[in-house]
Amino acid sequence: MGKSAGEEHAVKAFGWAARDQSGLLSPFKFSRRETGDEDVRFKVLYCGICHTDLHRIKNDWGGSIYPLLPGHEIVGVVTEVGSKVQKFKVGDKVGVGTLIGACHSCNSCASDLENYCSKKISTFYGTYHDGTTIYGGYSDHMVTNEHYVVCIPENLPLDAAAPLLCAGITTYSPLRYFELDKPGMHVGVVGLGGLGHVGVKFAKAFGAKVTVISTSPNKRKEAIEHLGADSFLDSRDPDQMRAAMGTMDGILDIVSAVHPLLPLIGLLKSHGKLIMLGGPDKPLELPVFPLLMGRKLVAGSACGGLKETQEMIDFAAKHNITADIEVIPMDYVNTAMERLAKGDVKYRFVIDVANTLKAA
Amino acid sequence: MGKSAGEEHAVKAFGWAARDQSGLLSPFKFSRRETGDEDVRFKVLYCGICHTDLHRIKNDWGGSIYPLLPGHEIVGVVTEVGSKVQKFKVGDKVGVGTLIGACHSCNSCASDLENYCSKKISTFYGTYHDGTTIYGGYSDHMVTNEHYVVCIPENLPLDAAAPLLCAGITTYSPLRYFELDKPGMHVGVVGLGGLGHVGVKFAKAFGAKVTVISTSPNKRKEAIEHLGADSFLDSRDPDQMRAAMGTMDGILDIVSAVHPLLPLIGLLKSHGKLIMLGGPDKPLELPVFPLLMGRKLVAGSACGGLKETQEMIDFAAKHNITADIEVIPMDYVNTAMERLAKGDVKYRFVIDVANTLKAA
Repeated sequence: MGKSAGEEHAVKAFGWAARDQSGLLSPFKFSRRETGDEDVRFKVLYCGICHTDLHRIKNDWGGSIYPLLPGHEIVGVVTEVGSKVQKFKVGDKVGVGTLIGACHSCNSCASDLENYCSKKISTFYGTYHDGTTIYGGYSDHMVTNEHYVVCIPENLPLDAAAPLLCAGITTYSPLRYFELDKPGMHVGVVGLGGLGHVGVKFAKAFGAKVTVISTSPNKRKEAIEHLGADSFLDSRDPDQMRAAMGTMDGILDIVSAVHPLLPLIGLLKSHGKLIMLGGPDKPLELPVFPLLMGRKLVAGSACGGLKETQEMIDFAAKHNITADIEVIPMDYVNTAMERLAKGDVKYRFVIDVANTLKAA
Repeated sequence: MGKSAGEEHAVKAFGWAARDQSGLLSPFKFSRRETGDEDVRFKVLYCGICHTDLHRIKNDWGGSIYPLLPGHEIVGVVTEVGSKVQKFKVGDKVGVGTLIGACHSCNSCASDLENYCSKKISTFYGTYHDGTTIYGGYSDHMVTNEHYVVCIPENLPLDAAAPLLCAGITTYSPLRYFELDKPGMHVGVVGLGGLGHVGVKFAKAFGAKVTVISTSPNKRKEAIEHLGADSFLDSRDPDQMRAAMGTMDGILDIVSAVHPLLPLIGLLKSHGKLIMLGGPDKPLELPVFPLLMGRKLVAGSACGGLKETQEMIDFAAKHNITADIEVIPMDYVNTAMERLAKGDVKYRFVIDVANTLKAA
């Protein structure tokens, strides 16, 4: 006989969950396991709101099971560690991103790429190794195997660091893997949202020349003056697009809507790389000749492994990179989701969990 | 006032050219320049027939200008060298592939990638640096700047080596660039024609496990027993395709017709590479999620630079790699084109130019 969410484990927990695909979040009592030998228990301080949270609570991709408690850009302070925990102690500032488990025996896991393990376990939905339901970071505390916990360096503000755990690693990892992290590279960023604005910052920190590509010319001032992009390209202006043809070493494409790839492929130099980070739910049109003629490539990248996530956080700390955020109280979350759906946020909502999540 | 083809230059030449987009080839008198300081003049012995020749004589891609004299898989014997020629002497066996010129000042040229130079000059159509019309290898002799001439090693049969100059380098180069040239790699080859069958041989010589992927199950025996592939996958058999999911490091896709990419992307391991070598004239459908979930990529590659072409020929000589060919006389060329259009050749027609091209 199945146990209720509040009875699965010994430790009471509390958060906000969606009960159905309306996606409306409301207070939810559940439970978390006791601290295992390799587990880190931490009090959640802040949790970012990623577009994936919105997709999942509304069941946009299918397969959502309710109650669904989102949140995978989580920072907090350690309150208890298991007997075999090596890396953390009580009081440490820590973070958990998109993953809390993987198989640890496949090639991806062996290469520190747990994010590409076919048995990876998400932070906020599905079933954990022990068969119990997983709940995310819009909650009072977390219990996570230490392998999936990263250390947040002292100089990073915890609220603005939270989005690095998904938005940060999702843009940092492809810049590294596809070798767009070299000084002098020219990197384009399409889609100036939660991911894009952090991507601009990482690319700049790597020494690249960064061009923001957008259908909204009114983002020019913001992109250049505030985010530090070197230039701005209005993708609806044929003259600007023509003048920029063949100038970019790589482009981070963070557009989830169906959109034409040909203009973006045209912006690439020979051997240039178009990296898709957004996931349109319908196939895109891929013109092959432009790829052939310049040995160009179109690739996908999804998040990053734990080793690289720590590396990214340390790099961010060194270069003072954080997300631009709007901190909100827990009970604003449904309004925040509505605004996120409209793109009305610069650039990431972060829930002040510790100060605003009140037990029902 | 324009000069006729026979009057442009001082040296008489002869070959077979198409006069219009019927593509019908017939004897054609023209002229070639005198041997310049850096030029190599050679008697054509053999010339392969590539599908690109067929596309160009029929103006499939637009822009063909007639008379059009095809041929870009050319081998011959040097008859004269210019005063500054360093690499060749009279009597040398030489080859010319798809290129006879480039800008030599761009990044691609500086990286020995003349094939990606935006000002590259094709071997068989268009206009040369001096403003004169270019004619290809279905002709009695060639005059080519030595930079674009490769040395054919002694042990390679000249007829079966000719197709290496296009089909060979077109498959060798991406295997190298995309790092599919490591022992133990699993490489798929889709499209077992002129390029594909040489691609199988190169991949095998690099130490890869090679799987031929085809819609024609009757190619299995040939692929495995004759070409040395390790396995064969009937792409219309869902069970076979399912069993092979996630097993390949890379795939050479040499299909020019519009075809679905999703099954091929599915065959790739995480971080796998689908390399397009054929050029469908309409966009293909690109599903983005499967790219994201495995950090996979779809790329294009077109031929190779001169340095790498020589490297490829030397590698082929070392590993006894040549094309499987059907040698034909010059006056069979129109029939050969008809058969090529139907895929009725194993795997490359090569014209025995020296013995069968007769002055009109």
